[in-house]
Amino acid sequence: MAGIRRAQAGRGGEGLVRRMTARPANAHQARLLRLLRDGGPNSRAQLGDQVDLSRSKLAVEVDRLLETELVVADGLAASRGGRRSHNIRLNPHLRFLGVDIGATSVDVAVTNAELEILGHINQPMDVREGPVAVFEQVLSMAAKLRASGLAEGFDGAGIGVPGPVRFPEGIPVAPPIMPGWDGFPVREALSQDLGCPVMVDNDVNLMAMGEQHAGVARTVADFLCVKIGTGIGCGIVVGGEVYRGTTGSAGDIGHIQAVPDGRPCACGNRGCLEAHFSGAALARDATEAAEQRLSTELANRLEAHGTLSAVDVSAAAAAGDATALDLIREGGNHTGQVIAGLVSFFNPGLVVIGGGVTGLGHTLLAAIRTQVYRGSLPLATGNLPIVLGELGPTAGVIGAARLISDHLFSPA
Amino acid sequence: MAGIRRAQAGRGGEGLVRRMTARPANAHQARLLRLLRDGGPNSRAQLGDQVDLSRSKLAVEVDRLLETELVVADGLAASRGGRRSHNIRLNPHLRFLGVDIGATSVDVAVTNAELEILGHINQPMDVREGPVAVFEQVLSMAAKLRASGLAEGFDGAGIGVPGPVRFPEGIPVAPPIMPGWDGFPVREALSQDLGCPVMVDNDVNLMAMGEQHAGVARTVADFLCVKIGTGIGCGIVVGGEVYRGTTGSAGDIGHIQAVPDGRPCACGNRGCLEAHFSGAALARDATEAAEQRLSTELANRLEAHGTLSAVDVSAAAAAGDATALDLIREGGNHTGQVIAGLVSFFNPGLVVIGGGVTGLGHTLLAAIRTQVYRGSLPLATGNLPIVLGELGPTAGVIGAARLISDHLFSPA
Repeated sequence: MAGIRRAQAGRGGEGLVRRMTARPANAHQARLLRLLRDGGPNSRAQLGDQVDLSRSKLAVEVDRLLETELVVADGLAASRGGRRSHNIRLNPHLRFLGVDIGATSVDVAVTNAELEILGHINQPMDVREGPVAVFEQVLSMAAKLRASGLAEGFDGAGIGVPGPVRFPEGIPVAPPIMPGWDGFPVREALSQDLGCPVMVDNDVNLMAMGEQHAGVARTVADFLCVKIGTGIGCGIVVGGEVYRGTTGSAGDIGHIQAVPDGRPCACGNRGCLEAHFSGAALARDATEAAEQRLSTELANRLEAHGTLSAVDVSAAAAAGDATALDLIREGGNHTGQVIAGLVSFFNPGLVVIGGGVTGLGHTLLAAIRTQVYRGSLPLATGNLPIVLGELGPTAGVIGAARLISDHLFSPA
Repeated sequence: MAGIRRAQAGRGGEGLVRRMTARPANAHQARLLRLLRDGGPNSRAQLGDQVDLSRSKLAVEVDRLLETELVVADGLAASRGGRRSHNIRLNPHLRFLGVDIGATSVDVAVTNAELEILGHINQPMDVREGPVAVFEQVLSMAAKLRASGLAEGFDGAGIGVPGPVRFPEGIPVAPPIMPGWDGFPVREALSQDLGCPVMVDNDVNLMAMGEQHAGVARTVADFLCVKIGTGIGCGIVVGGEVYRGTTGSAGDIGHIQAVPDGRPCACGNRGCLEAHFSGAALARDATEAAEQRLSTELANRLEAHGTLSAVDVSAAAAAGDATALDLIREGGNHTGQVIAGLVSFFNPGLVVIGGGVTGLGHTLLAAIRTQVYRGSLPLATGNLPIVLGELGPTAGVIGAARLISDHLFSPA
């Protein structure tokens, strides 16, 4: 219960130090911290309305939180008729680090305890270079954010990796696109280097948590969040909590069969969704089309840049290129067919589509919607919105901050 | 808190009366009731080890339960070294009614409060005759069980219907194979006729709850229970609780596409799993094969009985008939392919196969296993058992008794 230390007695490579040493002592305190995180500064009176505590017990718990310095006083609230209540808020000096590692780029952000982004850096990166190289880059990006004055240090960090994770040990397992990562102790290693508690999860789960915290899924208990980036995966939220499955691989929909006897996939099977549609598949198909001169637009872009990516397909489609539009539509059809089956099975209240290829926008969305509304039963789709994510590239880092805050705002 | 009444002051058509009027007053009492339900008679000392209550608080809650007559004293426990503790158990006079309505037959059973089956009747029935005719039959079966002296009345009833249910109102919604059932207030009507609380759920969910309570899924938190009967559906259990989805249609896997541009399905689409494999599809395919003289075994059976069912296919397969074996294998392949996708998505700890066609046994199971182990990633299937249900036709009625006991053993 020593409160938040300001000491800078460097420990670990980056000189970052552990700061927040207090944790809520019981479930009531944890609940109060999460309410302040999700709703911002609030009066004692209004918090009392939201938790099932007598006025005197509430006062005891709030006083204890003030002692830990996790929470600070924030002036008087507006009158509700009687004596004016005191406002409290989470300590504005608390800082979380959110890291979202993709296959080809990495996002690093600093948030306050209300998970508002104070600073955000995106850099290209190749996950295949292995964990040591990637985390050196992440640590130097974190140091840059600290040096800019946004944070003196971090009270916790959430890390997303593009593959299944053994949760809560925070260790990637058998990640298909990440040679060298299998079994690497991400949580342990990074918490030493950063000097703060670390939690690790699959990047798709973090995207779902981000959209749930600050995006399009704020009010939905059961939803699916499909991330189409270099690969393709699905975050599953049940009753407001991420469902990770028995071995942490839940939502691994990239290898569901989309086309019987279809294209060969890196996993050894044929016709997997990911072999037919993903950022990587789209780049491959666009390159083929350009080389076969099926599309002048794509051929010109290939000549100009040397390679093609989903961004080129998106730009070509926006310019009205029929081949690019076909590629997007066909990919959306395959994705939509797989999602249709998942909608029948899971009966979600919302489907969110996110990830790098959302630049493909409404052509993609229309194809997915058509397949789902046609292929699932009306009872499951009658009131089912299928929408693009709201947060774009910040969903993952907000989800990462949310992950570590959920951990820290739990009874020790 | 009037305890269990023995009054027979008949109310409703069958003269059955409401008996158990007490409900647990708080979460501790509910927990104790469920422990006694799932573990049988137990000593106060051992219950104390399992709940997070001081000895004096435990004594208070147990005394209150004894006052309600939900629980009764049951002699002295074996010594654990000190003074011998008193045993308690659920009142042995409590009776639950479990009803499992299928498409072509109905199971009705009486259980005690530990969900042991005391009596069980199965009768053929046609769900398409509508709820009034079906429930007349159910009530007369329940009356027969009462008349046999197994129950003076029922303290609660659980009802399973073969279609989606708006839970907790207990109203079937848009059930595809059940004309006349849409919107019928099953829960309200039956609780009047039976004179006791009633809960209604999808039959597949009840099968999952039955296998969880007394069958093969006793120790598993996250699992799938695939029921292949006249139709095909899937019970989803997350963290020990049935997941029903946003509109109660979760697990409706019969209309997931199994064969692109395949057979037309009653739902209006083509290639649905149910159109290619289910009790009904198997009977249709077997009849076709018999009429085309592809199988002497099936042709002889068709001539002898006038119709063919899954039972005939099973018998023909057991006699080594190649066509029957092919039908089962092909059906198992389609089913396994769909389950492979669900395993990638849900990463369960166990897959249970049950329902009428489990008579097809290991030929079916082998085909399903082959597809799942080949079609899902090793991380999801490495430690995944795929097994037949243990309880057969009693899974549904045990699940039904469990459903109503979960309701009654919750704080009022």
